[in-house]
Amino acid sequence: MRLTEVETPALLVDADVLEQNIAAMAQALPGGRLRPHVKAHKCTSLARQQAVAGHLGFTCATIRECEGMAAAGLGHDLLLANEVLDASRLGSLTAAGARVTVAVDSAETIDAAASGGVREVVIDVNVGLPRCGCAPQDAGQLADRARRAGLAVRGVMGYEGHVVGLVDAAERAERCGAAMELLLAAHADVGGELVSAGGTGTYAVNTWASEIQAGSYALMDTAYGRLGLPFEQAAFVLATVISRSPGWAVGDAGLKAFGMDKGNPSLGDGKVLFCSDEHVTVTPSRPVGDRLWLAPAHIDPTMACHERLYLFSGEDVVDIWPIDLRGW
Amino acid sequence: MRLTEVETPALLVDADVLEQNIAAMAQALPGGRLRPHVKAHKCTSLARQQAVAGHLGFTCATIRECEGMAAAGLGHDLLLANEVLDASRLGSLTAAGARVTVAVDSAETIDAAASGGVREVVIDVNVGLPRCGCAPQDAGQLADRARRAGLAVRGVMGYEGHVVGLVDAAERAERCGAAMELLLAAHADVGGELVSAGGTGTYAVNTWASEIQAGSYALMDTAYGRLGLPFEQAAFVLATVISRSPGWAVGDAGLKAFGMDKGNPSLGDGKVLFCSDEHVTVTPSRPVGDRLWLAPAHIDPTMACHERLYLFSGEDVVDIWPIDLRGW
Repeated sequence: MRLTEVETPALLVDADVLEQNIAAMAQALPGGRLRPHVKAHKCTSLARQQAVAGHLGFTCATIRECEGMAAAGLGHDLLLANEVLDASRLGSLTAAGARVTVAVDSAETIDAAASGGVREVVIDVNVGLPRCGCAPQDAGQLADRARRAGLAVRGVMGYEGHVVGLVDAAERAERCGAAMELLLAAHADVGGELVSAGGTGTYAVNTWASEIQAGSYALMDTAYGRLGLPFEQAAFVLATVISRSPGWAVGDAGLKAFGMDKGNPSLGDGKVLFCSDEHVTVTPSRPVGDRLWLAPAHIDPTMACHERLYLFSGEDVVDIWPIDLRGW
Repeated sequence: MRLTEVETPALLVDADVLEQNIAAMAQALPGGRLRPHVKAHKCTSLARQQAVAGHLGFTCATIRECEGMAAAGLGHDLLLANEVLDASRLGSLTAAGARVTVAVDSAETIDAAASGGVREVVIDVNVGLPRCGCAPQDAGQLADRARRAGLAVRGVMGYEGHVVGLVDAAERAERCGAAMELLLAAHADVGGELVSAGGTGTYAVNTWASEIQAGSYALMDTAYGRLGLPFEQAAFVLATVISRSPGWAVGDAGLKAFGMDKGNPSLGDGKVLFCSDEHVTVTPSRPVGDRLWLAPAHIDPTMACHERLYLFSGEDVVDIWPIDLRGW
């Protein structure tokens, strides 16, 4: 199949760039130093490439991501880096032979893990992002409670999500250090082998974590593209110009093909004016039938919009991968 | 099934409010005066309720929406209000007995309709929104070209998308009139029985169109909620509080559960601070296990995030409808 035969809108991934991104990260953070986050691509075929590169443990954001990874034979060591109040589906995975560790940050989530049949947890610590995670000083007593409930406590996690996107590299490194100081203090109280943290924006500067949860590096997006990282844009939404006017042209990919929380997608040789549900209006104008290569502003929710991705090399589609970890 | 048993995140639809919204619109625009737009809900079960209320023609935004509607027995009169360059799938629907009319605005899209096996078109006219549609003065010659290509021209369409969301009702009505003046001028050159236009924001003031393409009225969203229309919010994303901190709580629905182009979802009894991929951080804080009812800012792309909706009445789930028109 040639790229010209792909019906639009379609999610395209440059196989060569993907391979380079995965190789560059595997060189920087080999094996267990990286626990790739599958939420960024939601694709077990892509996760398999990360496993081939040496990363056998994965980070997940949802129960379904854990289920899909286990079903794909990638359940060697899954960390659900999120709290759940009903862990029974995770318990079923554990019983079936997958290794599933879940984040806990409260008595309720510890009880849910224990009663759901999960055997291993990490204590999720708030390191500055107003989201999940206990106060650092509470981590030790939560670990004690988890152990009393019969759970193995593998360590701590704490996501410096307020830091990973900072454009100023020096500020990013400094604030990452401040966040990890909180996490290491908690880890001293908790114990265990895991200090899990980080993302694509801090993978190179977060030297405190035992493992980094980066995901976006594989496909990239224009938000991370501003940080000067050694990863290139691998994912594009392909659209076809279906209408032209003197001042603009309209492509057949819109709000339902992009995660829009970080703004419009970007066009290499033009400007996106706005998106509608199934349209993108761009300047300058161009002929009906032309193709538009649109780089997403935020890769994670963009992947969740698509059923499949077209892996291409040059002008050829070399594979079609289902985006099989969508939904909940 | 009780609402309390629904796993989150989940899309909930209030059956009673939905029924009221559909009834209110059917009273204002009975039968063929409304051509409901299925892109707003992407759900054939919901479309069937609109058909039961008397609207037998539907508007679609994608080929797959047409296919899904026809497969559900709702292909009596489908208008694809969008241009396509490969109409072969639409031609197959036509050959199988569905009535499919497609929008055209150029020689290329007319040729595509004819060669793809579609038999009927409308001329799409630009009435002020910088998107698809020919210049009004070009509509007549495009209609001539379509007829020469063997296509029946049913009339014109022109979407006043730059007007439907205006909060000032007087300005909305005035600018709607200006847009429809352009459309009626084109219609005078084109002929045919259809003058198809409008949306939920202009359904009551657009008295020039022969039929209104409203969709959002059935489920509503907070953007349309500001307009003072006689439709109530029927759709919510339900989340569960999975983490609490002194200053905030975190629910398990995020960027992948909402169309975000019009901003954060809204919470009746609190404030949404921000969304992450699978989280929503809200104030004030509340207990782990509490449910959050989040009203989407933009219903159309929100529906596209979910595989199913839970129809509820009071505390009971009365039906589960697949959102079966997603994808392309």
